Amino acid sequence: MDRAAFVQALLDCGAIQFGKFTLASGKESDWYCDKMRFLTIPSLLEHVAQEMAPYTKGHDRIAGVELGAVPIAAAVALESGLPYVVVRKAAKEYGTRKMFEGELRPGERILFVEDVVTTAGTLAKSIEALRMAGAVIDEAVAVVDREEGGRETLKAADVRLSSLLTASEILKHRRQA
Amino acid sequence: MDRAAFVQALLDCGAIQFGKFTLASGKESDWYCDKMRFLTIPSLLEHVAQEMAPYTKGHDRIAGVELGAVPIAAAVALESGLPYVVVRKAAKEYGTRKMFEGELRPGERILFVEDVVTTAGTLAKSIEALRMAGAVIDEAVAVVDREEGGRETLKAADVRLSSLLTASEILKHRRQA
Repeated sequence: MDRAAFVQALLDCGAIQFGKFTLASGKESDWYCDKMRFLTIPSLLEHVAQEMAPYTKGHDRIAGVELGAVPIAAAVALESGLPYVVVRKAAKEYGTRKMFEGELRPGERILFVEDVVTTAGTLAKSIEALRMAGAVIDEAVAVVDREEGGRETLKAADVRLSSLLTASEILKHRRQA
Repeated sequence: MDRAAFVQALLDCGAIQFGKFTLASGKESDWYCDKMRFLTIPSLLEHVAQEMAPYTKGHDRIAGVELGAVPIAAAVALESGLPYVVVRKAAKEYGTRKMFEGELRPGERILFVEDVVTTAGTLAKSIEALRMAGAVIDEAVAVVDREEGGRETLKAADVRLSSLLTASEILKHRRQA
């Protein structure tokens, strides 16, 4: 499945929709990606895992933020043989509950996997949280980069963002349809 | 990996611990299973997926309650080729947010997968929620059945519970150690 076929598959299953949407950030958008729509389809989850597995090279462990990145982290773990941690979203509760689930050893090199990156605010916080726990993080890979500042936010945190698809590719597909 | 070897693997990775614990229900217990400890290790997650895959026979879709059952549902989906849904835990918020993530068609036969079953209170609520959405549910499979009423609760809801391990097997292992 090449990138264009992957975009088509995301359209076919209803994960990518065009219309009027208000994103979690409050921003308006004329397209939306319902990540759980495609991450719950095994052939598409497997495709994501196969495409992301090469990025695990040189890493000791995978990390994903609940909830969308959990199936991704599990699938990439099964594909690569590396273990993973799940980072809790509720940073405000870090005082009373675990910041992450799974094991983490100081000095480990962690690859962050993510579903859709917009501004990367949550991702940047999660990276900082695992760094405080001793993790070494300089790379993240997302299924979709909406190209709305996430890459720059992560670059400022010394993390390189790769993605299987970008907003430009998805929107180009719409123009051609 | 037979059942005894699986118990040993759960002990080795620190997922099963003996001591003094207060469970989520408030009950005291002299053993605890930290599910995310073993579900984040790919060889153990794969073992769970392989053992649970046969239970998917005759079903159209898998379901798991966030957060522990998400990697299980994803792994069993990859193993069996069936899609899955993730049931949200926050039942009180069902009015304002989606009750589950992923697609569900009325009349579909759903296999529930679960990490550790204690009283099965959350599981019973989630089954009821998916039934209201039109799902047909009569079977669930857990990694560990703590044998503290869950089987009976589910039986009263016409759901048969199977498990890869029971509390009796785990405690027998401790006596032999």
